[in-house]
Amino acid sequence: MTSKKLVNTVAGCADDALAGLVACNPNLHLLRGHRVALRSDLDSLKGRVALLSGGGSGHEPAHAGFVGKGMLTGVIAGAVFTSPAVGSILAAIRAVAQAGTVGTLLIVKNYTGDRLNFGLAREQARAEGIPVEMVVIGDDSAFTVLKKAGRRGLCGTVLIHKVAGALAEAGVGLEEITNRVSVVAKAMGTLGVSLSSCSVPGSRPTFELSPDEVELGLGIHGEAGVRRIKMASADEIVTLMLDHMTNSSNVSHVPVQSGSSVVLMVNNLGGLSFLELGIMADAAVRSLEGRGVKIARALVGTFMSALEMPGISLTLLLVDEPLLKLIDAETTASAWPNVAKVSVTGRKRSRAAPAEPLEVPDSTATGGLASGQTVLVLERVCATLLGLEEHLNALDRAAGDGDCGTTHSRAARAIQGWLKEGPPPASPAQLLSKLSLLLLEKMGGSSGALYGLFLTAAAQPLKAKTDLPAWSAAMDAGLEAMQKYGKAAPGDRTMLDSLWAAGQELQAWKSPGANLFHVLTKAVQSAEAAAEATKTMEAGAGRASYISSARLDQPDPGAVATAAILRAILEALQHKGV
Amino acid sequence: MTSKKLVNTVAGCADDALAGLVACNPNLHLLRGHRVALRSDLDSLKGRVALLSGGGSGHEPAHAGFVGKGMLTGVIAGAVFTSPAVGSILAAIRAVAQAGTVGTLLIVKNYTGDRLNFGLAREQARAEGIPVEMVVIGDDSAFTVLKKAGRRGLCGTVLIHKVAGALAEAGVGLEEITNRVSVVAKAMGTLGVSLSSCSVPGSRPTFELSPDEVELGLGIHGEAGVRRIKMASADEIVTLMLDHMTNSSNVSHVPVQSGSSVVLMVNNLGGLSFLELGIMADAAVRSLEGRGVKIARALVGTFMSALEMPGISLTLLLVDEPLLKLIDAETTASAWPNVAKVSVTGRKRSRAAPAEPLEVPDSTATGGLASGQTVLVLERVCATLLGLEEHLNALDRAAGDGDCGTTHSRAARAIQGWLKEGPPPASPAQLLSKLSLLLLEKMGGSSGALYGLFLTAAAQPLKAKTDLPAWSAAMDAGLEAMQKYGKAAPGDRTMLDSLWAAGQELQAWKSPGANLFHVLTKAVQSAEAAAEATKTMEAGAGRASYISSARLDQPDPGAVATAAILRAILEALQHKGV
Repeated sequence: MTSKKLVNTVAGCADDALAGLVACNPNLHLLRGHRVALRSDLDSLKGRVALLSGGGSGHEPAHAGFVGKGMLTGVIAGAVFTSPAVGSILAAIRAVAQAGTVGTLLIVKNYTGDRLNFGLAREQARAEGIPVEMVVIGDDSAFTVLKKAGRRGLCGTVLIHKVAGALAEAGVGLEEITNRVSVVAKAMGTLGVSLSSCSVPGSRPTFELSPDEVELGLGIHGEAGVRRIKMASADEIVTLMLDHMTNSSNVSHVPVQSGSSVVLMVNNLGGLSFLELGIMADAAVRSLEGRGVKIARALVGTFMSALEMPGISLTLLLVDEPLLKLIDAETTASAWPNVAKVSVTGRKRSRAAPAEPLEVPDSTATGGLASGQTVLVLERVCATLLGLEEHLNALDRAAGDGDCGTTHSRAARAIQGWLKEGPPPASPAQLLSKLSLLLLEKMGGSSGALYGLFLTAAAQPLKAKTDLPAWSAAMDAGLEAMQKYGKAAPGDRTMLDSLWAAGQELQAWKSPGANLFHVLTKAVQSAEAAAEATKTMEAGAGRASYISSARLDQPDPGAVATAAILRAILEALQHKGV
Repeated sequence: MTSKKLVNTVAGCADDALAGLVACNPNLHLLRGHRVALRSDLDSLKGRVALLSGGGSGHEPAHAGFVGKGMLTGVIAGAVFTSPAVGSILAAIRAVAQAGTVGTLLIVKNYTGDRLNFGLAREQARAEGIPVEMVVIGDDSAFTVLKKAGRRGLCGTVLIHKVAGALAEAGVGLEEITNRVSVVAKAMGTLGVSLSSCSVPGSRPTFELSPDEVELGLGIHGEAGVRRIKMASADEIVTLMLDHMTNSSNVSHVPVQSGSSVVLMVNNLGGLSFLELGIMADAAVRSLEGRGVKIARALVGTFMSALEMPGISLTLLLVDEPLLKLIDAETTASAWPNVAKVSVTGRKRSRAAPAEPLEVPDSTATGGLASGQTVLVLERVCATLLGLEEHLNALDRAAGDGDCGTTHSRAARAIQGWLKEGPPPASPAQLLSKLSLLLLEKMGGSSGALYGLFLTAAAQPLKAKTDLPAWSAAMDAGLEAMQKYGKAAPGDRTMLDSLWAAGQELQAWKSPGANLFHVLTKAVQSAEAAAEATKTMEAGAGRASYISSARLDQPDPGAVATAAILRAILEALQHKGV
């Protein structure tokens, strides 16, 4: 069974992918008849050195994503994981030469096919009189003993594109660029790790890993690595990788040590989540800084992939200030990230949380109920909710997860506990704000957020006044906030239904001479009727909206709870004869 | 069995990932005690509007990757796929307010938890006197009938970050930014497709797909989509997606039609290969342009992911010139790509391949063998190789894939065919160059490239002169190129061994009065001895280098072949008495 892929044909993968990148990037042109992408402003490069790179496809965004001003002049792409055709490499060299460039540097990853094909194109171009140099990049730090074939070319190649690109843009000559990047290429190392393999379109995955293994030191063509290790934490794996890469007994190590300055690349090999990429980047920064290494710049993203391989590679490049300037130079290449020109190590990474605003006693501090009365009202509300726990849970089981009573009881117990800590604020605005924070923290879930929203909004009109019109306005504000953020409207079979019915009656408080108890009694009755009426409503919001209305023949538990709260308030006030 | 992940702890994933992004991006600060990232240059924002966004983690690089000058002021991150805490949202609002911003816009993806928690923080902040507005983004085009909860917030949210960021950077006020982005948010649509699901750290994948199915219209939390369709080609899937997104009978469609101008986003949902992303981008551009839609800008990359989901989403935003200016505005946000400020549609996407250089008859055109003699030499070489086919294959079976004889026979037949087309060039340099191209094209593989390299390089010294010293120099140049690009040295058990032995003898041609046949005979004998000596060599390069030397007790077939070629040349020359 081959792997599923979003492709048109297996044979056309490399062509289609390059065509897509060129189509979406107006800085690029295809060279007709070849799998070659070149800068669309070639004619602006007269007198400068051209930089060509490339290799097999399947490493996107490498290499076409790194074509642009300040990076590559063009790339030649092969089929997936296959070296490009000599004829296409030669065509690219001729095209940049005919545009008036003064010489071409070929930047080639160290693989036999690429060395031979780029080498051959170079010899042919030189036979035509075009000055062409070639650097072969081997940044792999996986192999601890010397291999005849040398180190493989991996993600570090992208840094060479950047350095060479900055030099070419600055007008430096072919020989000097060649010499400079040859030196830079020796000062870096890359190591990869992956959770599983990848598969070439039309083929099966190239190796299998058991669920508790990870592969260390792999290349970018789905080939197995140098070691298979047991699954471990991100920190442990990063430590192992950095130990391996920097160990001086490893012939392919990069000589990074305490005091070194480096550019760090954290490269997604293709299919790893960016969440994990961030976690590995965090681990790499901590581990390097713990070793006394100064991270001058850190690049995190997908630079040189191995199709959809779910892993990362770490690249370390030793840098000094002149080299850093080249890394920092501007480029229009689409896949080069926005990197701040500031050292990663040594800067502050956090700021203090803001101060909480001071509680200013508001003008209504003495305008509410006496503290004792507030306590009696809240206690009655709590007792009511605790008494309804089983009933509300039963109603909720028909449509939700059966915890509506439990949630309201949790709120009631939180309020009871809070009342024991001291007298509640005398100001109604402060009282509602405090209750809001309490429910938000202790009640939890959507209900906690909705009560919190209601109370926070309702508190606002009570800051200035606490007369009956202000209390009616408070109800309006709470209802508005609840509808706005909760997206429920009256008739949607939610807690809003009973509150909204009550709010309509409370409008009467806004008329001069309105009676507190007369209006509130009507409001409570209206809320209770509305709660009962939710029986026949289709759920339009909240969890119950996913249930067919035919299965809902009980009232909504949220609406029942809010009606009961309003009745408890009424009864407590009547009992005390406010 | 939960999925393998590169994490430290499941509970710490969101914290570690955000810490990693902040550590690597000096433009960001963490807010201590909260999962909040803010611009590190907050103090430069006095008098401007602050933009805050965020939501659950698992969508990286959203949202922290879009914090920077010209985009977001900060983000608040929740646990994976979980809305952030109200207290942290409020802390972020307070922090930007205390830095001197004149108001805050909250940009919230349309999910109940985010609406409630951001809404509550907003109400609390307003109660403290901080001007805070909120826009809820719903760009999902999956649902064809009206949902009470409205359209989900998907990748299009990133475009709102960009537009709002450009306005805030330009000093526009809170109310105007809120109004502008509310209008823009209604002019876009997003649709996702995936090859399989993703898994929250510590959990199993959220749904299962069979090998021939893809999921259409999914969200970004691993939830299943609106339809499961049969696997199809990239073109077919993109056509289906665009049909669905733009169909006016779909209530959540984006009204894109012939003549519309759009920004296209091709977003990797996390785990798709960038090769496939490019293929889907290509399909999207062709399909849209086929519908008469003008693509003003195309953004291809990972913007809003769903952990490692292997899929993509397409976003279309209707744009006019003023809106495009905001999309094009500068930003330092690390995850915003380098986008050329040029229309995708309507520009030239390719350039003509360069002309092949004219063949200028070189000065040695008459310096070589007579045409008839060249034909006789080449015919003898071909006959020799054809006669050796089985023998070379047998030798190769011991160490390689057993096709060395077949490959050389293919080369011989190609040369025979070429000789029938007309007389070979009289100039030795042109002869070798032609043979190089022929072998490269027809022989194939590493052998073809190595012979091609040898002949191309060898041709160069023969351009100026064709005397015996020049032929010796030609051999030297060929050997040098072969070693340089092939990375084999004498003694590595390759075809180079016999050529190199011959080359040592041919040095004698450089002495005055050297004898053609005497020296060439010694060279052939030396090559044959070297080929025989490869029996006892350990393979240092090429395919045989992966085989233990104990298993190699036959000579290297490549070395045998090149020695035989040299003898064929000698015998043909002697026979004709040059």
